[in-house]
Amino acid sequence: MTRTEPSRDEDAWIGAVARRFPATPRVRVGLGHDAAVVRFDGRDVVLKTDTVIDGVDFRLAACGPAAAARKAVAVTVSDLAAMAATPRACVVSVVLPRGADFALFDGLARGLARGARAFGCTVVGGDTSVADGPLVLTVSAIGEPGPFGILTRAGARPGDVLSVTGRLGGSLLGRHLTFRPRVREAQVLARLGVPVAMMDLSDGLSTDLRRLCRASGCGAEVDASAVPVHRDAVRSGGPRTPLEHALHDGEDFELLLSHRPLSVRTRAALRRARVDLLPIGRVVAASAGVTIVSAGASTPLRPGGYDHLARAARKTRPRTPRRS
Amino acid sequence: MTRTEPSRDEDAWIGAVARRFPATPRVRVGLGHDAAVVRFDGRDVVLKTDTVIDGVDFRLAACGPAAAARKAVAVTVSDLAAMAATPRACVVSVVLPRGADFALFDGLARGLARGARAFGCTVVGGDTSVADGPLVLTVSAIGEPGPFGILTRAGARPGDVLSVTGRLGGSLLGRHLTFRPRVREAQVLARLGVPVAMMDLSDGLSTDLRRLCRASGCGAEVDASAVPVHRDAVRSGGPRTPLEHALHDGEDFELLLSHRPLSVRTRAALRRARVDLLPIGRVVAASAGVTIVSAGASTPLRPGGYDHLARAARKTRPRTPRRS
Repeated sequence: MTRTEPSRDEDAWIGAVARRFPATPRVRVGLGHDAAVVRFDGRDVVLKTDTVIDGVDFRLAACGPAAAARKAVAVTVSDLAAMAATPRACVVSVVLPRGADFALFDGLARGLARGARAFGCTVVGGDTSVADGPLVLTVSAIGEPGPFGILTRAGARPGDVLSVTGRLGGSLLGRHLTFRPRVREAQVLARLGVPVAMMDLSDGLSTDLRRLCRASGCGAEVDASAVPVHRDAVRSGGPRTPLEHALHDGEDFELLLSHRPLSVRTRAALRRARVDLLPIGRVVAASAGVTIVSAGASTPLRPGGYDHLARAARKTRPRTPRRS
Repeated sequence: MTRTEPSRDEDAWIGAVARRFPATPRVRVGLGHDAAVVRFDGRDVVLKTDTVIDGVDFRLAACGPAAAARKAVAVTVSDLAAMAATPRACVVSVVLPRGADFALFDGLARGLARGARAFGCTVVGGDTSVADGPLVLTVSAIGEPGPFGILTRAGARPGDVLSVTGRLGGSLLGRHLTFRPRVREAQVLARLGVPVAMMDLSDGLSTDLRRLCRASGCGAEVDASAVPVHRDAVRSGGPRTPLEHALHDGEDFELLLSHRPLSVRTRAALRRARVDLLPIGRVVAASAGVTIVSAGASTPLRPGGYDHLARAARKTRPRTPRRS
């Protein structure tokens, strides 16, 4: 490692180079949020790119190309959902491993088409390369902001409730390949004026909550007994407890949002729309940090999610799904 | 190779899966062109993704991260130029090789920022991963169509002149890293109503001209003596003649266009705007194929440019820049 390395932390690396990319008047939302919003010919366009890689985000040999490609579309669409945007179109970059055959390529196309259809995000173009490395899929999508404005990670205020849209943990048992991005849920929530700040949970609640707090300039207090633990988190086993799986595993792709306490009327509307909103804690002052309260004792909630660059720096193997 | 493989040709593979991606009314220009055009909230958005890879499109050890990253922006912007669109914003996916240090990451950021500034294509977001493979950079950009409509590869008609905007060949001696995408030239040409069909030359004239002909449903006749050979093509040496370098090397990133014969007035306007338009041949009927005429003899102009998938199928090494 060179001496210029500021930290072994993905957000720190990105923060350290962010000054190279000053915002312009055209950039309504830039670096540091789930997706960007660009002012464009009098309209706002939401723009997002995300990459999935064999051996990191899926195991091609186990899940096959169609499931991998569907996931590639889903992770990008999930970031549009985090802003309550409507996906419109995407372009796909495919880096094939050397020796790839047409069956692989066709399987990828099948999965891309399936994801595109399921999430309303038409594939309109792409790029294909071959390299001495794993399969790399990058999906870049554009979406339209909802009629209720742009939601970002910023704006959460002390007193807000923190909630998620579904149970967490154990996604690597299979849900990380089959999840449905919360596009509909985000739009229902936005229509009802619920979210103050919102993001999607890709790297684990403990990591992503800190990002929301950083963007909002606040702290958070999570109630351990309220964290909705998925049954997959219980089934996952390993050294982590079910709660730890729910806090740290990542790949949940549920929405995390801060909001004012809900009125009876809003609760009823969410129920009618079949949108779950599960409270997990509250927003506090920045000075209080990000903590988790269990049996009356408060401890710091340390990030235990996935950090690409920290793993790179330690030269360890990447996280790989145990099953897929 | 499996039996389902239709051909060892990139365009054939893509053609074989294209049926999986039917166009919708929202898609004004889809697969098979330099970039896509999507109808969006009453406006057209041009969308493009392109990927460059260490060992394929640059040699990181030789050129350094900033030059590689600048190229990543430039190749995507070049595709927007091919449609006479104005670049507006881009998002970047970076797949770092394991063990990458911050100096590499910061160098990439420097090059991205340089390209973004030079080409008016603000970096508004990105994604960072680490994998056991080469550095992979994917830049996805949005642009606005020019006021003179959308130009594509389609529409060339027999009788059109074929021209390019600069000299060809030998780009791998260094120009492939330093080229300036022809955004300005494309807009001057579009303003003057010159192009009928247009694209950028990334994989070599002999390969890309066939793509233009396929999209337009026409043939082409190239005049060997008219092909503008770059001095780098002469300096390149190797088994190829200078003309063969100009026809097949690729990475020229000049514009290739078909147009009606130019009026004296248009010629003067192009001269004033310092836009070169170098005629190389003419559009003919599809039945005549794509040929090159040399000393009165006509022979088929076979694709000799770069084909990622053909190389993959043959399991040979990819083309790598000899110098960079």
